[in-house]
Amino acid sequence: MTCDKPSAILLLSCPDRKGIVASISNFIFKHNGNILRAQQHSMLPENMLFMRIEWELEGFEIPRDRIGEAFAPLADEFGMKWEIRFSDYIPRVAIFVSRHIHCFHDIILRHRMGEFKAEIPLVISNHPDLKALVEQLGITFRHYPKTPETKAAQEKREMDELERSRVDLIVLARYMQVLSGDFVRKYAHRIINIHHSFLPAFAGGDPYQQAYDRGVKVIGATSHYVTEHIDEGPIIAQDVMKITHKDSVEDMRLRGKDLERIVLARAIRFHLENRILICGSKTIIFE
Amino acid sequence: MTCDKPSAILLLSCPDRKGIVASISNFIFKHNGNILRAQQHSMLPENMLFMRIEWELEGFEIPRDRIGEAFAPLADEFGMKWEIRFSDYIPRVAIFVSRHIHCFHDIILRHRMGEFKAEIPLVISNHPDLKALVEQLGITFRHYPKTPETKAAQEKREMDELERSRVDLIVLARYMQVLSGDFVRKYAHRIINIHHSFLPAFAGGDPYQQAYDRGVKVIGATSHYVTEHIDEGPIIAQDVMKITHKDSVEDMRLRGKDLERIVLARAIRFHLENRILICGSKTIIFE
Amino acid sequence: MTCDKPSAILLLSCPDRKGIVASISNFIFKHNGNILRAQQHSMLPENMLFMRIEWELEGFEIPRDRIGEAFAPLADEFGMKWEIRFSDYIPRVAIFVSRHIHCFHDIILRHRMGEFKAEIPLVISNHPDLKALVEQLGITFRHYPKTPETKAAQEKREMDELERSRVDLIVLARYMQVLSGDFVRKYAHRIINIHHSFLPAFAGGDPYQQAYDRGVKVIGATSHYVTEHIDEGPIIAQDVMKITHKDSVEDMRLRGKDLERIVLARAIRFHLENRILICGSKTIIFE
Amino acid sequence: MTCDKPSAILLLSCPDRKGIVASISNFIFKHNGNILRAQQHSMLPENMLFMRIEWELEGFEIPRDRIGEAFAPLADEFGMKWEIRFSDYIPRVAIFVSRHIHCFHDIILRHRMGEFKAEIPLVISNHPDLKALVEQLGITFRHYPKTPETKAAQEKREMDELERSRVDLIVLARYMQVLSGDFVRKYAHRIINIHHSFLPAFAGGDPYQQAYDRGVKVIGATSHYVTEHIDEGPIIAQDVMKITHKDSVEDMRLRGKDLERIVLARAIRFHLENRILICGSKTIIFE
Repeated sequence: MTCDKPSAILLLSCPDRKGIVASISNFIFKHNGNILRAQQHSMLPENMLFMRIEWELEGFEIPRDRIGEAFAPLADEFGMKWEIRFSDYIPRVAIFVSRHIHCFHDIILRHRMGEFKAEIPLVISNHPDLKALVEQLGITFRHYPKTPETKAAQEKREMDELERSRVDLIVLARYMQVLSGDFVRKYAHRIINIHHSFLPAFAGGDPYQQAYDRGVKVIGATSHYVTEHIDEGPIIAQDVMKITHKDSVEDMRLRGKDLERIVLARAIRFHLENRILICGSKTIIFE
Repeated sequence: MTCDKPSAILLLSCPDRKGIVASISNFIFKHNGNILRAQQHSMLPENMLFMRIEWELEGFEIPRDRIGEAFAPLADEFGMKWEIRFSDYIPRVAIFVSRHIHCFHDIILRHRMGEFKAEIPLVISNHPDLKALVEQLGITFRHYPKTPETKAAQEKREMDELERSRVDLIVLARYMQVLSGDFVRKYAHRIINIHHSFLPAFAGGDPYQQAYDRGVKVIGATSHYVTEHIDEGPIIAQDVMKITHKDSVEDMRLRGKDLERIVLARAIRFHLENRILICGSKTIIFE
Repeated sequence: MTCDKPSAILLLSCPDRKGIVASISNFIFKHNGNILRAQQHSMLPENMLFMRIEWELEGFEIPRDRIGEAFAPLADEFGMKWEIRFSDYIPRVAIFVSRHIHCFHDIILRHRMGEFKAEIPLVISNHPDLKALVEQLGITFRHYPKTPETKAAQEKREMDELERSRVDLIVLARYMQVLSGDFVRKYAHRIINIHHSFLPAFAGGDPYQQAYDRGVKVIGATSHYVTEHIDEGPIIAQDVMKITHKDSVEDMRLRGKDLERIVLARAIRFHLENRILICGSKTIIFE
Repeated sequence: MTCDKPSAILLLSCPDRKGIVASISNFIFKHNGNILRAQQHSMLPENMLFMRIEWELEGFEIPRDRIGEAFAPLADEFGMKWEIRFSDYIPRVAIFVSRHIHCFHDIILRHRMGEFKAEIPLVISNHPDLKALVEQLGITFRHYPKTPETKAAQEKREMDELERSRVDLIVLARYMQVLSGDFVRKYAHRIINIHHSFLPAFAGGDPYQQAYDRGVKVIGATSHYVTEHIDEGPIIAQDVMKITHKDSVEDMRLRGKDLERIVLARAIRFHLENRILICGSKTIIFE
């Protein structure tokens, strides 16, 4: 799944028609590129093609900063929306956290063990509790408590801080605050949240209590991009576990932590590895 | 899990307090009963105790038709709601089916292989398609098509037929019709439905289309008792499977069939084995 | 996932090097083919590339019976092992069955519901029990009981019958007999078996008893191609379910049936849809 | 599942016969005990009964240090093997760890979040790497590297250290060393190991490589008590995840970490909550 030599990754979507795969692979081949992986998905009702193609930069005859320019005519011909990423770029991640800190700890641990190819320069919280721990890890910690009155001003500070730290991705690791529409639009498709239910069931507050009250036999966790509509953004990863009548709300909260950690980590990894394309409320994930 | 000698099964619920388990097991023991299995569940917020206790009838000094009478004083003392069942009683099951027949076939097959200790004397459908097949199996087939105008009269016929066949349990095996309140009340906690989503998500019509449109990464199936509020009855069994963007609505319908079959079969088995207690919208299932 | 118009499917493997994907997609494109799906897998330690590419036959300028000839020079250049299949060819499947008939019934049911795009002209058993049922379905039934003495002669009859029925795929649906090396070699990679354990654990006889004796907490099922070494062929599909100390060997046999049915059906579907490439003891499955 | 008031837990096994449940619940009731939970399991082929019964100490008329004495006559009558535990006793856990530290970190994190009702006074490793981190957590760290020559002497030091720290449970958190028979016997049923495969498959070294070579479609993890026979002790918990041909050995190692963490944590929790009875190579777990 991983490859140490730098590669280019082209992510694109366009109306489906003949010759797209051939044209793109030909573009790469004729400039002496070696395709490592090519994946497509045809969304039939919408007649759309989604594609991820990755090739080695070594030996490729176009320098990386001019690939876009060279590719543009082909992209125009097929009406593509597209982006190019490079596997040796290290994305910068900020973690937003509140009082439930298991996801935060999990991300830090996975990062230290090399599971995420990323840097974590910034942690933002509405509680001061994690300050010492975060700073000890060499990460900037910012404490921005919010009230309805101070929310706008605090978000302004947060956005300044995110820019200063050149953050590419924001992870809401059980951050219990709702971000404003302006904030969300600015970081469109770059904020990942974890919700502790299998959405769309039990959106909103206290999903384990809701699950207990309804008497379901499975609980779940959902990781999704944040949009202006709470708990309605494109879903990246979901998983569930079985429960029984023996599980109290407290038991669900405890057992659910494992789900939340795993589901959030998968979503982060997919994003960092440039595996996700978004189409309306859906994600195409090229695993 | 199974035992060939006949046994008595006591299902009860009552406010939790000291001495219940001891009193009941003592009642059985002093009449020379051998307890095969005893299970309880304390629902803490509600301070309720639920219990299932099973003992061998062989050697038990009270004849089976007088056990209730003998037990009543104890039940009154603790304010119990209770029932006694006997493992050698063979329940009678009617299957309601419409045009999606995979669950119907699955039930018939499991029955023939001895998975359900039950008789199936009656199949009711709003389509005539299965008539020949059902009758060939030696089962009565009734075709009751329904329009808004004929629904009340047809349900009357169905209820007559159910009585004539002395049916204990009705299984809606993807029967796409809504039963009236009167019907449902008459067979309270004796009608099991299968819904092809993980409820409470995607209640109502065409849940796979809903799932596709929302872009979820898991699909599910839910088996529940039918109440007057559609898709809101106590859940007996649920399961899910992972899907990806590659799965079309058609793929979900196909793959979901396996879920539906398994989840419905589990619910039927739990019911037939007298393992289910109901508390409001929840089930306690003593596996 | 499915497409009604006929398509060509190229399955190939070769040493990995630059330009393969581009050359193949170019071959299709320059003859006016529309690629529906292209999937590759690079097996790194072995430096091998595996590929499945599917394109519409409509509008393709090479008639289907000459595609091979036209493709051969390219195949030679890259040292490919390759095959071409057509989506409108309906494979012919024979089922071998013994006394455990749940998988047999499941296959028949799925087939009738359109889950398998195949014909089932032949059922072979070492017991006569299913004769009436099979013939009623319009399928030829052959009863070939075997003893150590008669095995060779009976297998001869089986192979004659398979040829007469032009069978492409043999499914051992809990057929408890070991096939000879000659038989297996003749139908290499065209015999699918279901074993009721998660192989390589509990190979050989009575895996549920073995599982019970070892005290495992999961049971499984494995579908694999049959090779001369029993239970060691390339694995196509596996799944498991959790069990507890409460499950007796009988319970495992009962609950395991669902696993066996689902795992075997998945393997058959993958094979029929030309999604499987084999590399030594491993399968590459392009889902 | 949890209850804050102190309770007594009786774990027992004996030949199955009439009156056991009644006698025990009567013993508790007549001394004014309130039964919180009673679970039994009849192992049919062996005709053995296993039982866990828990009652509140508050109001119980026998002081806790005399319960054993009072219960002994009843235990003798039925030929029971039995133990009494108290819910307010805090077990002491030592962690043995080598170079794979994800399970170690996971245990520490769960412990800090209150998931384990235990103390962790001691960490032992054959590598010095974790020293600073462990001591910072206020836990004694001991570095006992082993060679074939020093193994016996080092184990002696380990056992001394374990006694000094009054350790009740040893967790081998991916400790890659084999403990001697003497060590294992001394801590019989008090050493829990995590093995990174679904045992009995892929026992021994490098199970992910073994899994890759065999081409399985699921990988697993198994937590078990350590006995003198490596990887053959009674299994406490197992779980699996699906993999595909795309997963390299490295991917398995990465993804498997989540399995290992969860499976080991479950086993530790079951042990700490006195939910496990052992019968030969099997565990009975009263969840």
